[in-house]
Amino acid sequence: MSPCSTIGSLWLALLVPGTGALAKDDQAAQPKPEVPPALNVSGYQSAADKLIRAATESDFAFRRLAELCDRFGPRFSGTTNLEAAIDWALAEVKADGLENVHSEDVLVPHWVRGEESAEILKPRYQKLPMSGLGGSVATPKKGITAPVLVVRSFEELSQRADEARGRIVLFNAPFVNYSQTVTYRTRGASQAAKAGAVASLVRSITPFGLQTPHTGAMTYEAGLPRIPHAAITLEAADQMQRWQERGEPVVVRLKMSAKLLPDAHSRNVVAEIVGRERPEEIVLVSGHLDSWDISPGAIDDGGGVLSAWEAVRLMHTLGLRPRRTVRVVLWTNEENGLRGARNYAERHQQELPNHILAIESDRGAFQPTGFTFKGSEQSKAIIGQVGALLGALQADKITPGGGGADVEQLAPAGVPVMELTVEDSKYFWFHHTSSDTPDKVNPKELSQCAAAMAVMAYVVAEQPERLPR
Amino acid sequence: MSPCSTIGSLWLALLVPGTGALAKDDQAAQPKPEVPPALNVSGYQSAADKLIRAATESDFAFRRLAELCDRFGPRFSGTTNLEAAIDWALAEVKADGLENVHSEDVLVPHWVRGEESAEILKPRYQKLPMSGLGGSVATPKKGITAPVLVVRSFEELSQRADEARGRIVLFNAPFVNYSQTVTYRTRGASQAAKAGAVASLVRSITPFGLQTPHTGAMTYEAGLPRIPHAAITLEAADQMQRWQERGEPVVVRLKMSAKLLPDAHSRNVVAEIVGRERPEEIVLVSGHLDSWDISPGAIDDGGGVLSAWEAVRLMHTLGLRPRRTVRVVLWTNEENGLRGARNYAERHQQELPNHILAIESDRGAFQPTGFTFKGSEQSKAIIGQVGALLGALQADKITPGGGGADVEQLAPAGVPVMELTVEDSKYFWFHHTSSDTPDKVNPKELSQCAAAMAVMAYVVAEQPERLPR
Repeated sequence: MSPCSTIGSLWLALLVPGTGALAKDDQAAQPKPEVPPALNVSGYQSAADKLIRAATESDFAFRRLAELCDRFGPRFSGTTNLEAAIDWALAEVKADGLENVHSEDVLVPHWVRGEESAEILKPRYQKLPMSGLGGSVATPKKGITAPVLVVRSFEELSQRADEARGRIVLFNAPFVNYSQTVTYRTRGASQAAKAGAVASLVRSITPFGLQTPHTGAMTYEAGLPRIPHAAITLEAADQMQRWQERGEPVVVRLKMSAKLLPDAHSRNVVAEIVGRERPEEIVLVSGHLDSWDISPGAIDDGGGVLSAWEAVRLMHTLGLRPRRTVRVVLWTNEENGLRGARNYAERHQQELPNHILAIESDRGAFQPTGFTFKGSEQSKAIIGQVGALLGALQADKITPGGGGADVEQLAPAGVPVMELTVEDSKYFWFHHTSSDTPDKVNPKELSQCAAAMAVMAYVVAEQPERLPR
Repeated sequence: MSPCSTIGSLWLALLVPGTGALAKDDQAAQPKPEVPPALNVSGYQSAADKLIRAATESDFAFRRLAELCDRFGPRFSGTTNLEAAIDWALAEVKADGLENVHSEDVLVPHWVRGEESAEILKPRYQKLPMSGLGGSVATPKKGITAPVLVVRSFEELSQRADEARGRIVLFNAPFVNYSQTVTYRTRGASQAAKAGAVASLVRSITPFGLQTPHTGAMTYEAGLPRIPHAAITLEAADQMQRWQERGEPVVVRLKMSAKLLPDAHSRNVVAEIVGRERPEEIVLVSGHLDSWDISPGAIDDGGGVLSAWEAVRLMHTLGLRPRRTVRVVLWTNEENGLRGARNYAERHQQELPNHILAIESDRGAFQPTGFTFKGSEQSKAIIGQVGALLGALQADKITPGGGGADVEQLAPAGVPVMELTVEDSKYFWFHHTSSDTPDKVNPKELSQCAAAMAVMAYVVAEQPERLPR
């Protein structure tokens, strides 16, 4: 017997009269109930426990993650590695028995790093571990050799703008948090160019490193010279800071041959468990299959891919076919373009009103703690109750916040979005580096991520009523 | 007024009659007292506090450490870097006002790494971050290309010895503790050669890495073929293990051009505060100035050098001239030969009976916790009481154990030896890598290390009686 029917019948009527009667496509006009609707949590607990048990008693997700990383390595947009990984994923989801398996074509940016190097020439010769930033232009063939101006912030650059002309500006901004500090990576080149710099460097965006350069995306501001932009290590940035503070001039030679080729073909991977009652209504679970060119992407975001994929595979294996369709999407090109998710939002525009919820896992497959959620107050209350089913995993914390970068592309159309949260204190140690490898993922924790994704997706897909927008 | 005379007079007679009357050079023949002698701890507390305050109110030691590392970089035996750092240290200790500043010539091994690389050729091309091990032979110019046999231990190698012939053996031994796990680095090549391997690799000796290869010393067993031996990263070792477990053959190409040149000239740096009453009796404090060729050696052992050096500088600055001579020695060639300390032991053979205590700091300049000590039971009791003066720093824990690798060379002559202990849980993350840089040292903690070294050396040098051997 499928447990679905039993569980479905345990759903209780919403506490607030009228809410249950909301017309599907006309919710905005309705008055919002002040008391959140109640979910018969205990009615879903047995299905939840079944999913949690199935997930955590197996290391299948980890073994598949390791195979993905070992077999294909870095999966950067525009590479055969990524396309081979997509082919493999399509074959595997099919073999898993999922339905409507297909790919959706996407044009993605095709930036190629090429050969690159950095050296300190003065005060003492030293090779600099470095990573050109995604989207950067090249240096001339012989490189750019210039004295370095080290600044801690954009403010310091403004104050010392007259010292920046003709120099390589190094932004040695200490890591505060990602969203705050990453601005030196994304915007540093144009800020430096504005002051007349010939190239720019950025302290890698991480609180800790072992001579580890971190790559990532950067952009150029229109109307300003486009200068080469690269990340160096914490160690080297601090060393240059010390030299500058001692009054010893630092001279660096930077060589980059990066180029932007015409857009390349890639694909999102899509597969489903078709809903037994409302197949047109969709709960989407996802992670992104692409990674940076220097990174095997085990944590960013192989672990997210496997959390989402395993969640759906487990439902299928356990014979749990929920009321609505659960669709797993493995995004392409999250890292340097978000073209996968943007293409999806456009292609599925007509379908988005029927996207009940879109979930992503892209914070690393560490010990799960819960989910962020962005949606109406009523739906937040329901989601809080679903979250409570994850108490045994201590993954029951629902906090306000956006979805992952991909599912956020669906939010403007009104789709409620969420992201798996994890104990991510070390996430940025590995982020966008060659050390983002399977050994950084604990198989037990990955299985718990999959369990949390499975329970959330299943229970929302199984509810008698749509999540109120 | 110098505080020395006051403090000296506070020493109380030993509790056990007779102990105080031990003839200096004839202690072994005397009966050992059963009750440890008591130290008037409170009598030394004010000098101790003065030293602790002077150390911890300043970041002088850190700034000097950063200058050492930034200015000279890696200080490997046989390099001009090391000799330049020695010249600099000699000039600096002289400028500090220390006495009898001189260097002592030492012949040191001169191993040169040369160009080196490793690549995985199958099942998927990948560059392998690596570090040839100190003392290894080279590969032929075109490299050694061979299938890999991964083993977790020498036991597994024995069981699979017939699979090792013609292969590159990778020892993928998980880090248990340094002394246990390092045996795969030091002895791996000969064990692999015994089984017919053509080269050997070792998982870097650390509990954690970010694609970080760790170098270090290795030896060849007489009568066995000498095969090239190199360290790879934890990530790559685990990846090869997974490939092997999936039945996918792994082929690696290893290229090394290392060679051993004739011994080179180097020097120990020696300086003193000459004892005011017993100048011939010596309390030695030390760290080693040399580092591995890939490492700036901030923690291993620039921090130890500065802890010892700063301890003596502070005594001098504060006008604390103890009863006995305090001698600071900055060893050369700890890393790949111990020739500095061995030369010292030989050269100063006649003086060793008057070496009251030899202290080293070589576990990293982290938060100090106390000292290990190896000496007689009576002296241990006294040392325990000196340690108590470091209670305010929580560096008062005296545990049985050897001295550092250098001062251990004096132990066979009966010199009591000790080593500063620290909160070293991350020590091996940085050990023998390019990430052993000043930013890994907390200036406050380094100053506390210097304080602990200063108090221990000063109080032992100030005692009315020698530490009983």
